[in-house]
Amino acid sequence: MNEKTQPTHSTGRIAASVDTLDPVLIDDLVAANRTLASLNVLDAFGHVSMRDPRDPKRYLMSRSIAPESVSAADIMALDLDSRPVNEEDRDKVLYRERFIHGEIYKSRPDVNAVVHSHSPTVVPFTVTRERLRPVLHNAGFLGLGAPLFEIRKTAGKKTDLMILTPSLGKSLAKALGKDAAVILMRGHGDSVVAPSLPNVVFRAYYTEINARQQLAALTIGGPINFMTKEEALTSNEAMLKASARPWALWRKKALAER
Amino acid sequence: MNEKTQPTHSTGRIAASVDTLDPVLIDDLVAANRTLASLNVLDAFGHVSMRDPRDPKRYLMSRSIAPESVSAADIMALDLDSRPVNEEDRDKVLYRERFIHGEIYKSRPDVNAVVHSHSPTVVPFTVTRERLRPVLHNAGFLGLGAPLFEIRKTAGKKTDLMILTPSLGKSLAKALGKDAAVILMRGHGDSVVAPSLPNVVFRAYYTEINARQQLAALTIGGPINFMTKEEALTSNEAMLKASARPWALWRKKALAER
Amino acid sequence: MNEKTQPTHSTGRIAASVDTLDPVLIDDLVAANRTLASLNVLDAFGHVSMRDPRDPKRYLMSRSIAPESVSAADIMALDLDSRPVNEEDRDKVLYRERFIHGEIYKSRPDVNAVVHSHSPTVVPFTVTRERLRPVLHNAGFLGLGAPLFEIRKTAGKKTDLMILTPSLGKSLAKALGKDAAVILMRGHGDSVVAPSLPNVVFRAYYTEINARQQLAALTIGGPINFMTKEEALTSNEAMLKASARPWALWRKKALAER
Amino acid sequence: MNEKTQPTHSTGRIAASVDTLDPVLIDDLVAANRTLASLNVLDAFGHVSMRDPRDPKRYLMSRSIAPESVSAADIMALDLDSRPVNEEDRDKVLYRERFIHGEIYKSRPDVNAVVHSHSPTVVPFTVTRERLRPVLHNAGFLGLGAPLFEIRKTAGKKTDLMILTPSLGKSLAKALGKDAAVILMRGHGDSVVAPSLPNVVFRAYYTEINARQQLAALTIGGPINFMTKEEALTSNEAMLKASARPWALWRKKALAER
Repeated sequence: MNEKTQPTHSTGRIAASVDTLDPVLIDDLVAANRTLASLNVLDAFGHVSMRDPRDPKRYLMSRSIAPESVSAADIMALDLDSRPVNEEDRDKVLYRERFIHGEIYKSRPDVNAVVHSHSPTVVPFTVTRERLRPVLHNAGFLGLGAPLFEIRKTAGKKTDLMILTPSLGKSLAKALGKDAAVILMRGHGDSVVAPSLPNVVFRAYYTEINARQQLAALTIGGPINFMTKEEALTSNEAMLKASARPWALWRKKALAER
Repeated sequence: MNEKTQPTHSTGRIAASVDTLDPVLIDDLVAANRTLASLNVLDAFGHVSMRDPRDPKRYLMSRSIAPESVSAADIMALDLDSRPVNEEDRDKVLYRERFIHGEIYKSRPDVNAVVHSHSPTVVPFTVTRERLRPVLHNAGFLGLGAPLFEIRKTAGKKTDLMILTPSLGKSLAKALGKDAAVILMRGHGDSVVAPSLPNVVFRAYYTEINARQQLAALTIGGPINFMTKEEALTSNEAMLKASARPWALWRKKALAER
Repeated sequence: MNEKTQPTHSTGRIAASVDTLDPVLIDDLVAANRTLASLNVLDAFGHVSMRDPRDPKRYLMSRSIAPESVSAADIMALDLDSRPVNEEDRDKVLYRERFIHGEIYKSRPDVNAVVHSHSPTVVPFTVTRERLRPVLHNAGFLGLGAPLFEIRKTAGKKTDLMILTPSLGKSLAKALGKDAAVILMRGHGDSVVAPSLPNVVFRAYYTEINARQQLAALTIGGPINFMTKEEALTSNEAMLKASARPWALWRKKALAER
Repeated sequence: MNEKTQPTHSTGRIAASVDTLDPVLIDDLVAANRTLASLNVLDAFGHVSMRDPRDPKRYLMSRSIAPESVSAADIMALDLDSRPVNEEDRDKVLYRERFIHGEIYKSRPDVNAVVHSHSPTVVPFTVTRERLRPVLHNAGFLGLGAPLFEIRKTAGKKTDLMILTPSLGKSLAKALGKDAAVILMRGHGDSVVAPSLPNVVFRAYYTEINARQQLAALTIGGPINFMTKEEALTSNEAMLKASARPWALWRKKALAER
């Protein structure tokens, strides 16, 4: 745990950190949680975070509740060692696997949003030898790589497969590497990263959709005409912009429900 | 039928048994029924029970109606021979397969809740040679075993595959054994047991989810990197606690619907 | 067309035929239509009928609209040549494939209800060599047989696969035979028959469920431990009674929706 | 871009073009958008258009928003070079792939409605060698052909797989040919055409349903008893009329939701 490498902060400055955040951003994060639950990427587990746009050494995430239940009051700020920034949040129950988020933000300055999920059709691709590769143009980001994290190699035989320590979070972030948008977690799910919150929701959704379509293509029988690396990267660039359209729909629906 | 082995009880004491039960517990059982219906683990068949926390020789279950219709007034107490405890419940229609519950409570003192379902993706694993094994960490409890009960061996050729007698209930409980969390029932479904009601709902749900993911992994093609026994047991311990999070969500939604 | 073999009827007697029918029975038929739509057995096509309990030479069915839209006012009486019985119904648009119903009622006096659907997972079993056989005990009625009707053999090369004439209805009824509960229709769907309306809804639903589970079992890989003929028949007897439980739920929900 | 081949139009005449359109037709187009979203043929992407019944050199389509959000005010007229006809629409954000529509209307005078979608179970058939062929009689239109457009051959290595230029639209229209109802787009989805809006919704829906059923039939194992060419064409003729029934249901539900 690199706790010493993170600056300590004045409580006064910190206490204000979420309160003064743009309420639109808080709503964005609430909407992202609810959207991924309604799209069946998240069930009662999983979590969504965004880097604090005012301070890249912090990120925002809900306290530990089911994503579809998240409201604005549940959002808190954490530092990159995944400790609550605000005094008043010290007693709240935190997601036990929050280190996934903090350690990825440390190692990937290009990443501003992270989703961890048990994406149902992705899980089978974490326990088989078939790689998850881009079938659908919306999932071109898979061309950036989707490596597999086999926790058994790091955590040893007694693992419960969860990322419960900063050290495991660091190992996961290392396995993600400098380029990939998705890290598969064996017998567990995945973590998806992106430069923005709308785009991470988009990527988490299309990772699941691509997994379903790749599974169907395997059922039909190969060879499968996957996107080339070049196509995938070109498509990914286009989708970084195009994710605005679904996000407008998803955000509106998610916030209208309550 | 071991009717004589069970104590007879004073009607007075019994008549009060459900009425004086904590209404929160009754609501828990109502919520468990509705939740498993809304999660598509139960259709119009199947049933959920919990051991009476005041008297381990009794259990609580609905009268015979579809699980998603269950309300507090439908809950009754049964003794471990699966006879209604209260005078006023003697005329009610009971689940014909209630012996699944009573006989498991007799043979498994560690079990405080039971679900019997026709879990749709579990059924195919009851008629094939592929064993149901833990793919997803939430389903680590499958590492405790998920044996198959072939009713044909016990009930003979004329079976309708149902557990309609105490004797068949006993055979099923014996096949479940002392450790397993799930017993597969050929051509029928499964019965799932747990130390608590929230955990049995959790296990019934993730048995279905694991079956879907194992089916997808088989479609992709082996070898499948199943959880090891040690991982499964470690994960199971973690999930006994972690099931509180989904339960909070499920309970709230189930009780809000009416 | 056996039009002459059916008695002509006095308009007076006929005009009253539906009006005086027990409104509970009309609601049953409305509920059956909506239920099978909400269970995704029927989409915007398909139809449900019941034999008129007052006159076995008539049956009751909706005019030609999508099943989920059916209301009491849409129900009309038809004779077994599938002609409207009541004067006021003569101008209504009828289901073009109503001969499925009329001809089955003629040939099967034991049948009191018929469903024709494009049951989505049944269709693949109509174009492959794998027979639909009972996997799940609720589908024991499949043990009575589920023959395939290859319309190409009867209707010739220019068929649109539909049962648009009394003659094709007769051929279909003949292929169903005297015992089967289900007739598969190649590239089209199925028709399901039962001694009662609740049971035909039950059978249509579990035909679809069994098809899904048999498909999953085939994916896992054989040999599949199907129900034996004896088990299937025993289970079918039990389910003729047990279908009351789902029916109570389905009917209530279907009629509450409007 | 064939901009010169299209007539320029008087702004006065044009400005009135949508305003004076029958509001029933505008509602039809709104309903078509929402219906295909609720049927899961469209997600937040995809678009639906109809040829302007008053001027075959124009078509009507929404501005660029998610299909399920489309309202009457979003509908605009475009010429066949896919430029907004009305002055007031010049600043609106347009679907970037609108050239799919314009170029098909140019090359296929028989076509009066077009749907472009990422139909989820169709995508796997665009990356494998299995052809999409009619299994279900409702999908007889597949007998008119469902060729594959491999954009890599036209757009080169750096393609993002989207139809972003008139030239790519023309290539797609050419690949569709003079007869087919569906063009598969590799790694992307499909475009479906029909002589009327109700029929194009019908065809887009049953293209997805047929893909699911063909996938299931392939899972069961061949040989698959596909519809013959003659059966497919006969059935297609019947369905051009029969699509009125589902359309009545879908339109009513889609417009009732808001």
